[in-house]
Amino acid sequence: MMIVNGAEADTIPATDRGIAYGDGVFRTLCVENGTPRHWQRQYAKLEADCRALGIACPAMHTLRADLAMVENSGLDQAVKIIVTRGSAARGYRIPVSPQITRVVQSGPLPRYPAEYAASGVKVHACRLRLGAQPALAGVKHLNRLEQVLARAEWSDESVAEGLLCDRDGWVIGGTMTNIFISEQGRLVTPDLASSGVAGVTRDRVMDAARRNGAACTVERVPHDRVLAADEVMLVNSLAGLWRVREYSGRLWNPGPVATQVKRWLDEEEPAA
Amino acid sequence: MMIVNGAEADTIPATDRGIAYGDGVFRTLCVENGTPRHWQRQYAKLEADCRALGIACPAMHTLRADLAMVENSGLDQAVKIIVTRGSAARGYRIPVSPQITRVVQSGPLPRYPAEYAASGVKVHACRLRLGAQPALAGVKHLNRLEQVLARAEWSDESVAEGLLCDRDGWVIGGTMTNIFISEQGRLVTPDLASSGVAGVTRDRVMDAARRNGAACTVERVPHDRVLAADEVMLVNSLAGLWRVREYSGRLWNPGPVATQVKRWLDEEEPAA
Repeated sequence: MMIVNGAEADTIPATDRGIAYGDGVFRTLCVENGTPRHWQRQYAKLEADCRALGIACPAMHTLRADLAMVENSGLDQAVKIIVTRGSAARGYRIPVSPQITRVVQSGPLPRYPAEYAASGVKVHACRLRLGAQPALAGVKHLNRLEQVLARAEWSDESVAEGLLCDRDGWVIGGTMTNIFISEQGRLVTPDLASSGVAGVTRDRVMDAARRNGAACTVERVPHDRVLAADEVMLVNSLAGLWRVREYSGRLWNPGPVATQVKRWLDEEEPAA
Repeated sequence: MMIVNGAEADTIPATDRGIAYGDGVFRTLCVENGTPRHWQRQYAKLEADCRALGIACPAMHTLRADLAMVENSGLDQAVKIIVTRGSAARGYRIPVSPQITRVVQSGPLPRYPAEYAASGVKVHACRLRLGAQPALAGVKHLNRLEQVLARAEWSDESVAEGLLCDRDGWVIGGTMTNIFISEQGRLVTPDLASSGVAGVTRDRVMDAARRNGAACTVERVPHDRVLAADEVMLVNSLAGLWRVREYSGRLWNPGPVATQVKRWLDEEEPAA
């Protein structure tokens, strides 16, 4: 089911800057029994990403009303929210008074093979190197051709995700996940100042580590450091946490840190 | 007027990968008296760009039929052609049998101030640095947030264009134009192996130089080399050629090379 600017619809104007230039941002979240999970965080991230592009973010109550229109099935759902700079005449120049487009689209949760959660995942080493663009790094914007090309590198169904480095060889994350590595019990996640998407679940892990007095730092992570790590984890809002079982010839056994981080993610977060 | 997949329409499905990921390419061309200018070149470039993304390019006769539907006003028009990988379920993975979306949209030619052609243009030095992505460089794809951000750097109506460098300081081109510089009568245009769009008019200038026995090379061009050049020109399919009058504190007088290149562009090209 799809809601476009507050009304049930399945199309948007072909002149939308979302199509013309990918001029917008998006979120993918889980709606459980009609309640969007981690909504405050999801909205805060949407707002921050809109701000990065100079787009006026729709009000929280407006999006909640849109969500209410797709939430009534009672089943858990994957919901995607897209906010674009709206329709405009041709040309890169930002219109004086853009009419923002918002799309809220619900669908079934992705059905990942049960073994992903039970036994960990196999990860492809992407050949594509992510470009560096500090002005857009961290933002979940609609310019996702790098992820499309990276995801097209493998078709083996047993491979759950692909890991991407930038052109200087620093690990950035998966095509649709953020990565954490564990080194002697200390968590490390890559610096996303130049590339990548800083996801809500990544923030939740960092906050949970802080709350629990566990070491968790943001650092530049070379590829070899992933291979040398004690444990490797991938996270996002729909999959939760997958521990990496196999990557680039290295195998990992289940470890205590991934179990601990998964427990953090399953716990209720304290009110902000 | 707008033609979507061969029929008059003004919307596309909100699930189109063009919106979701900018997963497509586009062309902007001039249609004169019902005839698209340099159509063989425009189509060849569309086809090459589709190939770079693994998108099946619509057949030439299919697009010509679309163009015929918008060409009947008799007036010269700007036509934009968008080809996307079409609608699909959520996720970066490319569908097994994508149903390509094609949009052909016509509108009035842009009305640039008469002084641009008469006296040359003033150009802004963009602060944004283009990211490097060899897998997408040269392709006119729908991931254009860098151009949107760059174009937002100035609002002064007397500035016609902004010039962009990559993060290593090499000049790439304007937000919507390719650049040529002239050094002692020799033309040079930047290497676009890592960033930028290799436009049809850039190709036409290079071919015309070859036909006319004039030196024209593709090189890495540092910013200072633009400032030291005898003449600087910007080209694209709608504007044709603008000589640069002012950039980054340097002023240029009209010169013979821009006049010559403009003449080449105005001439009929020999049949391929």
